Formats: sequence, structure tokens, C-alpha cells
Amino acid sequence: MDLLIENARLVTMQEGEQGYLPTPIARVGIRSGKIVAISTKEQGKDSEHTESLLNPAQYGQTIDLQGKLLMPGLVDCHTHLVYAGSRANEFEMRLNGVPYKEIAKQGGGILSTVHATRAATEEQLIELALPRLDGLLASGVTSIEVKSGYGLTLQDEIKMLRAAKALEHERKVKITTTLLAAHALPPEYQDRSDDYIGYVCEEIIPLVAQEKLATSVDVFCESIGFNLAQTERVFRAAAQYGLRVKGHTEQLSNLGGTALTTRYNGLSADHIEYLDEQGVLALSNSSTVATLLPGAFYFLREKQLPPIELLRQHNVPMAIATDINPGTSPFADLTLMMNMACTLFRLTPQEALRGVTQHAAKALGYGDSRGVIEVGFDGDFSIWDIDHPADLSYQVGTKRLISRIVNGEYVSHGGL
Amino acid sequence: MDLLIENARLVTMQEGEQGYLPTPIARVGIRSGKIVAISTKEQGKDSEHTESLLNPAQYGQTIDLQGKLLMPGLVDCHTHLVYAGSRANEFEMRLNGVPYKEIAKQGGGILSTVHATRAATEEQLIELALPRLDGLLASGVTSIEVKSGYGLTLQDEIKMLRAAKALEHERKVKITTTLLAAHALPPEYQDRSDDYIGYVCEEIIPLVAQEKLATSVDVFCESIGFNLAQTERVFRAAAQYGLRVKGHTEQLSNLGGTALTTRYNGLSADHIEYLDEQGVLALSNSSTVATLLPGAFYFLREKQLPPIELLRQHNVPMAIATDINPGTSPFADLTLMMNMACTLFRLTPQEALRGVTQHAAKALGYGDSRGVIEVGFDGDFSIWDIDHPADLSYQVGTKRLISRIVNGEYVSHGGL
Ligand SMILES: [Zn+2]
Ligand SMILES: [Zn+2]
Repeated sequence: MDLLIENARLVTMQEGEQGYLPTPIARVGIRSGKIVAISTKEQGKDSEHTESLLNPAQYGQTIDLQGKLLMPGLVDCHTHLVYAGSRANEFEMRLNGVPYKEIAKQGGGILSTVHATRAATEEQLIELALPRLDGLLASGVTSIEVKSGYGLTLQDEIKMLRAAKALEHERKVKITTTLLAAHALPPEYQDRSDDYIGYVCEEIIPLVAQEKLATSVDVFCESIGFNLAQTERVFRAAAQYGLRVKGHTEQLSNLGGTALTTRYNGLSADHIEYLDEQGVLALSNSSTVATLLPGAFYFLREKQLPPIELLRQHNVPMAIATDINPGTSPFADLTLMMNMACTLFRLTPQEALRGVTQHAAKALGYGDSRGVIEVGFDGDFSIWDIDHPADLSYQVGTKRLISRIVNGEYVSHGGL
Repeated sequence: MDLLIENARLVTMQEGEQGYLPTPIARVGIRSGKIVAISTKEQGKDSEHTESLLNPAQYGQTIDLQGKLLMPGLVDCHTHLVYAGSRANEFEMRLNGVPYKEIAKQGGGILSTVHATRAATEEQLIELALPRLDGLLASGVTSIEVKSGYGLTLQDEIKMLRAAKALEHERKVKITTTLLAAHALPPEYQDRSDDYIGYVCEEIIPLVAQEKLATSVDVFCESIGFNLAQTERVFRAAAQYGLRVKGHTEQLSNLGGTALTTRYNGLSADHIEYLDEQGVLALSNSSTVATLLPGAFYFLREKQLPPIELLRQHNVPMAIATDINPGTSPFADLTLMMNMACTLFRLTPQEALRGVTQHAAKALGYGDSRGVIEVGFDGDFSIWDIDHPADLSYQVGTKRLISRIVNGEYVSHGGL
């Protein structure tokens, strides 16, 4: 976990334009997984203190990046990475013109994922998540949020959260877990959504909090999900048990879920295609991040764009995430989402990169330790064979990730 | 080049629904790079002839696919893979609201790629193409068409074609080269496009044919490219020198380039968003393939969809390709194009898969040797850790390619 990085050009993503532009050749020292010193000066030109902190003799490992770009490790702040079953058949049926009702009759839709996930063991869930996780890591990701939400029983939600956490033992990656029991109404609670919310608040949240299986709680606040009053019940229970909240809000209609999320000091309001100016103002007056999910927008062929210009005007931090899930965003590549954010939502490449670094970290509650290269922050990096950070939003598929560094541990992705 | 594949489920992509559905466990024998026998029967249940052809003792190498899906190697039948320079800056300027004129003034647009490509050596062009090529190979590709078209002088077009061919020595892949000298008007011919076409027909085509640097000739037939008469001059010269033709046609307007391409027995008409029913009929009465390029459609945010329903009605084979290029489709992932073909153009997953196998091979003139698993065809395969071929069009980014086989040579991509 002690690593000295030499000959790197840094894209620190510190506040302001400067943080986006590659620095001259620099050195970064990482001790016990944390950045302890950064120097963009020639060797011998720094303060004695900095020089002593960057003394190669004090590091177990030194790597020479040969002028490559060193960026923060990318953060995917909204995923449903853990699930069982495939919805490829449903995708195919839809494209073959099979009516939605027929697909539902054949067990399609989110409940097919719920059934498959309930039937899977924790080990199977881990195994099934790995090829998707490997896709994300190959796009430079070092931190991932993973939600539950396909179990919808205490035991199955816990199984999902445990499987998500266990991914940290399979790969070099940091996992943050979110309880999303209020994702869909389980079939056994049909027409009793208030009862289900009661179960979530009284049984699931207390145990998940007690066992520390998640640090936040999410709700699908939507006409086809849970209403505003139900969302608030969940948020109140979460707050009571010391868990942070966040919401799937304003994706398909404007219910006011985003403003509600800000009132509970929410980490992020996600999707927000239908957010109006009042909602943007609520975000602006809060510390809640606006998380954009262009993959779902693309896959569902939505027409309603999130209010990007208003979010800019009101200085709301925008994050971008894959939302990887089998129903609406089967995409395990965060740079593809950056491209979609630029192409479909007209974000600038700088906004897109902030959206998967500084702002995504903030959306996970790690705004003061991840997503930026700065002394005191975690030693999490992505290293790229590109000339300019705009390239990350511009190309997709091209092999340009050289390596990742997680807590100061170097993970090769083919380069150097 | 002798390889016996055991325990595979085949997606042969032979004609008809049956060719799309995975077979029971099967064996495939490859000798000298060609498929010599296929058996879906239990061992000992085949004819003596087939059994003898599949006798393991006769093969240098045997692999056990453990029930994984064996598909034809994917074919990317339209790329501009070889070029120098980056257009990430232009992408960024556009998203920052810089007017097109200002970008052009700063040397943006296709001519920036021409300048950088002219300035690069053949070795540099190879080096620069590799990260993009590696992206394509990781998406299961075994055959790639590569066009020239950023040199626009005899010497620079030849340099591009040589660089493209040389990629075969860098990676296990088959490269087919296309001369696209009539891609854009080089600055030195400003206002003299007929003179440039004369140069292409009288100087470039004869030498490229003589040196066997390309097997086909392409033209950008468009209001902002070359007109129909100029396109026909190029096609006539190509035919005269024994080269096949193809066109970038009907992408932004309906000039009749597709019908012209069919009259010259063209391999494919590519883009075709603005193709009308007359053009579809011309395709239908020819052996020319309709190649769809959804990456450019997406990246340029086009609204005009290609006439998919008409193409279906008239049984025109549809291919899908990346069109990878720095200006309009910076995407090195053929499965992403399959997803875009389904999501944006509403192709079915079966159509999308045919579009990158059987029909793409036909678009390259290899309809009787590639793109299908059949005795006598090339031993080119992609091997996938998926349950159903629809998955290839459905997910993007997930690591599911196990390996490729090119001419019977096994190339691991992480699995088995
Ligand atoms: Zn989600
Ligand atoms: Zn093209």
C-alpha cells in the first residue's frame, strides 16, 4: 500500500478548470493507501518537507508512468450490479413485436429478475456479477455503488448486499452498498404496497443497519414504483437508523421525489429527466448530487432530457453512472456512459469526467476522500494512454486503460 | 492450424431460424484453417466418414469448450481503423458551443485527420491503430475491412493500405483493404474535384490494383462528398482494373449512389439512411448488401432512420459495422453497434447477429467462406460465455468473450 508514482501527468479533478488540465510531469506518494504528497516540481525543487515525503527510499514500490495520464479512479455511483437471470430473451421478444402484456405473462419484467435472484445463492450472485464487474473495472472504475432491490424479502435483500460486499474479495475494487428494498412491489404484497413499506421500514432497515450491510437507503419514487408518502416513510426510517438516503426520482414523471430527497439531506437524486426548476432549486439549496443515467435514457428511447441547463445555472453537481441493470441499462462500461452524457445530454467532456470522479464520489458520501487527486485522499487512480482527458468521453471501446491503483495497490490492465 | 473443437454448442448462422439457435453439444474439425467436419451427434453415432474426419488422433490440438457457445468470428465490414491524430479536442469544442466555422478555422474536421495521417509514418499508423484494433478483437471480431481515405495522395493512400495490411502481423486477424481515395477533396485540389477524380482514376487506382494493395474501391457519394457522375467515373476505373466497388451512399441525402453501386455489381451500399423504395428495389435485384452504421447515426444525432422495414420486405441482406473513424463514429466495439442497431434501428438480435456474421462476410465478398459455421468455410470463430446469442446484442461491456479462433489458431481472451 506504499507506492511512489513518478513521471505522471496528473488530471487531479480538483475544483476549477485547472483541475481538468493535465499537469506537467509530477510525482505522487501513497502511504497506507492514502496520498501523502504530490509534487509537480522537478526533483530537488520542492520544500524539504515534500522532498522527504517523496523520498524513493521510503517506498516499497516505485512506478514510472512515462508521462501517461494519472486520473482519479473512476466512481460508478449508481449500479444494480448484483442479480441473477438474463433478460436478453425479453429484449429479443420486444424487438420481435411481442406485446408487453404477453412478455409479462411469460414472466418478463423486473419480477423475472426477482425470481431468479431469490433462487440464486450468494455464491452464485457473486459469480454472475463478475463478468459485469470486470467490464466496469476495464473502464477505469475503482469505486462502485451496488444496490439491492431484486430480493424484496429480508433474507434475499441481505443476500444481495452480502454478495455485493464480497466482490471486494474477488477483485481490487471498493464497494459501497445501498438498500433498495423499495424497488418494486413483491408479488406476495400485491395491492398492499403500504404493508410492504411497513415491512421495509420495520424489519429490513433495522436489521440492515444493525448488521452494517448498507450505508444508505434508496427508493424508486415513481407512479410505477412507490409514492411520495411511502418514500418519506422509508427515508424517515433510514434516518432513524443512521443511514443516508437517495432516490430514483423524476425518471418518468414529476412527483417531487427529488425535493423530498434533499429535505432528508440525501446523497443524490438519480435519473431526474422530469425535474422542474423548483426541483433544481431544491437541489441547489442542498448538498444532494444530481445523478444522470444516460444508459437508461438511451435504452428506453426516452425523449425527455434532464434539465441540464438549469442544473448548470444553479451550480448543482452532476454525477454520471451506468445504472447497470438487466431491465433498462445493460451496460458495463462507464466511459460509454460519459459518451452518452455528452452525445445525448450535451454535457461537456469536463462535466462528464467530473461526473464520474469528483461528483460521483460526493454522491457516495466520499466527497472528501475520493474522486480527486489531493493530499489526504485515497490512493485510487486510473492510468490512461491518452493525450487529453476529453478522450475518455469521446472514444468507446479503444484499449487505453493501462492500469488502476486501488488503495495504493497497482492492478495492471495490459499496459506498463 | 489443425484443431478439434469438442463440447461446443454451435450458433452456425446458416440460413434460416435454425442457424441462429444453439445446437446440442457438437464437434468441429479444422484442418489447414478450414472447417472439414461438423457433428452434432454423439461420438460413434456419425457416418464412418465423419467419424474418421473427427478422429482426435489426427489433430495437433483439441479443445473442450465445456458447452460454451461457438459462433462465427464476427466481421466488421466497414472501418476507417487506420489514421493519425485525435479529434477529441474538436468533440470538446463542439460541446463547449464553439461554432463549426471556428472549429474549421482551427483546422478541425476531416482535414485535420488528413494532415496528421500524411505526417505519420506507416509504423506510426500501425502503432496508433492497435488500441482500436484491440477493442474490436475484444468484441469477438476476426475479420475487418479497413479503408484508406485520409491520405488523398497516391503515396499516402498506399501508406495507409500497407499499414492496414500490416495489422495482420501484429494480431491474429484478417484484414481486407479498400481504397477510399474519393473520401474527401484534398486541399490542394480545392474547387477542382473533377481533376482530383481524374487523379484517383488514372494514378491511384491503377497502382493500387497492380500492387494488390486493395480488393475494392469506395466513394463518399454525397452532396458534401463526390457527385454521382464522379462516383461512376471511379467505379468504372475500379471495374477496369478488376477491383470490386462499394459506396458511402444516401447517408445525408438521396443522390442515387446506392442504385449506381448495384449497377456496378457493388459489394455493399453503406449508411443508406435516406434510401427510398426505388433504391431498396435496386438492392433487392442485386447482390449488393445494405450496410447499416448505427454508430455514426448515434454520434451525429441523426433523425432519419434507414428504411429497415422496406429492406426486410424486399429481402435485402443487412450488415452492421462500426464505421470506426475519428469524425463520426469513434467506437471500437462491434457488439455496441449490434445494441445500437437493435435499440435505434429496431433490428432484432437475430438480424443484428446476421449483420456481423453472414451478411457482413457477404459485404466483403467472403459470403462463401466466412461468417457461417459450415464445412468448407474458414476456421474463424468467437467463443462466448453466454446462454443465448441474443445476449450479444443486449449487453455491452460485460466480459463474455472467452476466445477467438482465426484460421484454426486459438487466441485466448481471458477464458478457458
Ligand atoms: Zn437504478
Ligand atoms: Zn465510413
